[in-house]
Amino acid sequence: MTAYQELERRHARIAAIGDALGILGWDTQTIMPEGANDGRAEQTATLSVIAHELATDPRMGDLLAEAEGDGSLDAWQRANLREMRRHHIQATAVPADLVEATSKAVSVCEMTWRAARAESDYAKLLPSLTEVLARVREGAEALGSVMGISAYDALLDSHDPGARAERIDALFADLSGFLPDLIGRVLDKQAAAPAVIEPQGPFAVEKQRELGVRMMERLGFDFRRGRLDVSLHPFCGGATGDVRITTRYDEANFTDALMGILHETGHALYEQDRPAAWLTQPVGQSRGMAVHESQSLLMEMQACRSAEFITWLAPVVRETFGGEGPAWEADNLRRLYSRVERGFIRVNADEVTYPAHIILRYRLEKALVAGDLTLPDLPGAWNDGMAELVGVVPPNDRLGCLQDIHWPGGGWGYFPSYTLGAMTAAQLFDAASTADPEIVPALSRGEFAPLVNWLRVNVHQTGCFHASGDELLTAVTGRPLDASVFKRHLERRYL
Amino acid sequence: MTAYQELERRHARIAAIGDALGILGWDTQTIMPEGANDGRAEQTATLSVIAHELATDPRMGDLLAEAEGDGSLDAWQRANLREMRRHHIQATAVPADLVEATSKAVSVCEMTWRAARAESDYAKLLPSLTEVLARVREGAEALGSVMGISAYDALLDSHDPGARAERIDALFADLSGFLPDLIGRVLDKQAAAPAVIEPQGPFAVEKQRELGVRMMERLGFDFRRGRLDVSLHPFCGGATGDVRITTRYDEANFTDALMGILHETGHALYEQDRPAAWLTQPVGQSRGMAVHESQSLLMEMQACRSAEFITWLAPVVRETFGGEGPAWEADNLRRLYSRVERGFIRVNADEVTYPAHIILRYRLEKALVAGDLTLPDLPGAWNDGMAELVGVVPPNDRLGCLQDIHWPGGGWGYFPSYTLGAMTAAQLFDAASTADPEIVPALSRGEFAPLVNWLRVNVHQTGCFHASGDELLTAVTGRPLDASVFKRHLERRYL
Repeated sequence: MTAYQELERRHARIAAIGDALGILGWDTQTIMPEGANDGRAEQTATLSVIAHELATDPRMGDLLAEAEGDGSLDAWQRANLREMRRHHIQATAVPADLVEATSKAVSVCEMTWRAARAESDYAKLLPSLTEVLARVREGAEALGSVMGISAYDALLDSHDPGARAERIDALFADLSGFLPDLIGRVLDKQAAAPAVIEPQGPFAVEKQRELGVRMMERLGFDFRRGRLDVSLHPFCGGATGDVRITTRYDEANFTDALMGILHETGHALYEQDRPAAWLTQPVGQSRGMAVHESQSLLMEMQACRSAEFITWLAPVVRETFGGEGPAWEADNLRRLYSRVERGFIRVNADEVTYPAHIILRYRLEKALVAGDLTLPDLPGAWNDGMAELVGVVPPNDRLGCLQDIHWPGGGWGYFPSYTLGAMTAAQLFDAASTADPEIVPALSRGEFAPLVNWLRVNVHQTGCFHASGDELLTAVTGRPLDASVFKRHLERRYL
Repeated sequence: MTAYQELERRHARIAAIGDALGILGWDTQTIMPEGANDGRAEQTATLSVIAHELATDPRMGDLLAEAEGDGSLDAWQRANLREMRRHHIQATAVPADLVEATSKAVSVCEMTWRAARAESDYAKLLPSLTEVLARVREGAEALGSVMGISAYDALLDSHDPGARAERIDALFADLSGFLPDLIGRVLDKQAAAPAVIEPQGPFAVEKQRELGVRMMERLGFDFRRGRLDVSLHPFCGGATGDVRITTRYDEANFTDALMGILHETGHALYEQDRPAAWLTQPVGQSRGMAVHESQSLLMEMQACRSAEFITWLAPVVRETFGGEGPAWEADNLRRLYSRVERGFIRVNADEVTYPAHIILRYRLEKALVAGDLTLPDLPGAWNDGMAELVGVVPPNDRLGCLQDIHWPGGGWGYFPSYTLGAMTAAQLFDAASTADPEIVPALSRGEFAPLVNWLRVNVHQTGCFHASGDELLTAVTGRPLDASVFKRHLERRYL
């Protein structure tokens, strides 16, 4: 067995543990009885430690060095080896005791956060969040020093390989110069138009579920290798060949679950169509969080909120729920699904204001990690940023800097991928519809095959063959990510 | 850290992997999409290999030897150490390549068995079953030679520590001398009595499920630490603090699901009440398969098919399903739930004929492992034994020696535990009702607390403190297992 083959064998084992953790994680969030929590934490901690021990086995470094001198590898094997090296750097750069200390700090902080948010009490969160930030920064500095990049870049890179603050600064500057004015104009236009009419429920959960399943099937979700279930926070998880998405149903409103399912199905198609020959290997995984988010947003925002698709969708939902009257007209639904509002809460934000929420978080977390902003000053900085970027100031911290779990949960450097994903989605959808002029007309017939086929070949099945999201975009659209297509998309849809 | 403490730490890790496997196994049998099968096999194989590597780590032997010389251990720690030694012998006695060869032979044979059974084609199964038996025998000989016992005793011991063929021969001889005559007399009595009336369905699945949940709650099942779901083959599985039972519903018949749930709840209570301080350790596990089966049969057969309980149950099921007329009278239901029939299929057998099915399998597998019977002669020997023990001869092998998955699945030496469990249940129930005279009267009020409290203290919470099922029985009932109470129970209930 060559060193490279031995590395493949070891990574297959790590991947199988990751898949087991994926199923356990799904179970935890969907159906686990509440009293099983401690035992589940023990199981996941044990499997995580074992996977980490395998990844940091001293022999790994030798094998990598030896394989990197192997001239016989083909292009996919070399790409796989490059990803293995990246994993090894990530796994070994941070000392095991710091990993453990971070994990403990996060556990405490997440629990504190739930109470602090409920009580809108930032002071309550401050000590544990300070501890999390300190540990996260320490880990990021260790990784950054190995990679020769800043601590914040190291955080970005761990979610989205190749992402750097310098690039994001430029992309977000472009957007933040554009959004406040756009939001104002869109709101003016909305105010001048006739009021949008909300379809009135109740909408039976069983019917919502049937509609969701039908849509998933139309999008090409393979139920032989996946499931749809219910959880408090919708997600796409599971394992290789067993991709499980979730949603939550509200009898007063069918749109949230429907759009949520379309969104998660976008993620799921990416996972179901990863390159078959490389499923257990690093090169067979998805190309970072921004590209992953681009797949969900491409489905939800680019395809399924398009006028073309909604024209097809309107009679379908009307029949499903036995609706009648003007609320169920395609044009009303289209306007309902593209309503813009200055709100406090990111997860409720529309396509136009969402990036403003993200740019705020990006600026703040970058400054916090760099030490240019301190945590006691966060609430004030948050509210100032909301005023500037979104145009409203939250009345309390529950609706402000306490709303997201990301920072208490250790997920620093993750926020940008939401908006990078939205921009990537626009750029990919534009390239796809140009390459295959049938894609958009097919949507007006409720058909996704042309779009999904293009994504499958150009994105899903390329796994991590390209070294970064930008390299993937360049290969597929002819240039790295820029904001132009996204801006044009927003103007066309909302003005 | 002492050697003993280090052993505890290592076993906690092995237990966490076992728990993760328990949840994955539950998932596989209940809700996994069919296309996920290969991936799931990969996950479970990987976790099993890791657990086996931890169990056979060369350092384990040294730690055990050192801990065995530690005079400071208390009685539970010593019992734990004894179980650790047993695990180590089991894990190390059989060479890894033989474990793998056996596992592969079993995979092939199980698949072949499904087709062979469907086609009633024993010749089709013969080659792969021959391979399984050869590998199983080889492993059993290896284990037996380390333990200084026969190959078949080694198989018995691996399911039920301390079980030996010599003891089972005597117990089963007692039963097999008694059963054929008893069966004849019970059938005569049944024939002379008025016909039993089957309640007529359909019985809505949702109502059956609600009834099942209600019964589980009455028995003391803790839904905070467990679930009830549906699977093709009912089982009790899951993990520590997360005990999951399953059933299957038939709209034409509510009794099978109800009795199945009561049976699995008996298993589940044992798991939910294992000793809290030892949950992750070998001494905190259940005391072998015969004792485990005794807990399900004690609930189903001793308690829930008793005249006392059925008197309480009859109006409950009548109300649940809106039943009317003589079919729903307690006396009719009692006779329905104790109907005896000479049948071909073990899993459909009643309490009286079931042991005859087991004794047949015990005789045959013991002879096959010893080489006193060869696999080509199995169908003939099966049919002869059925004639002698049950009094009927199956018309084909599908209803004969092809009916059970145990032998193709590598589960040799397992069958006796069903009937040892039935006998153990009778002996324990007798001791319990004597120790607490409230137990039986409580059943006639649908109350299980006195019974479950007695079981909790005397059986569930003792884990593996006693070295064998017989030691447990001796501690609790004053003597090792014998057939007398079981025989008396059958005579009282059926004659």
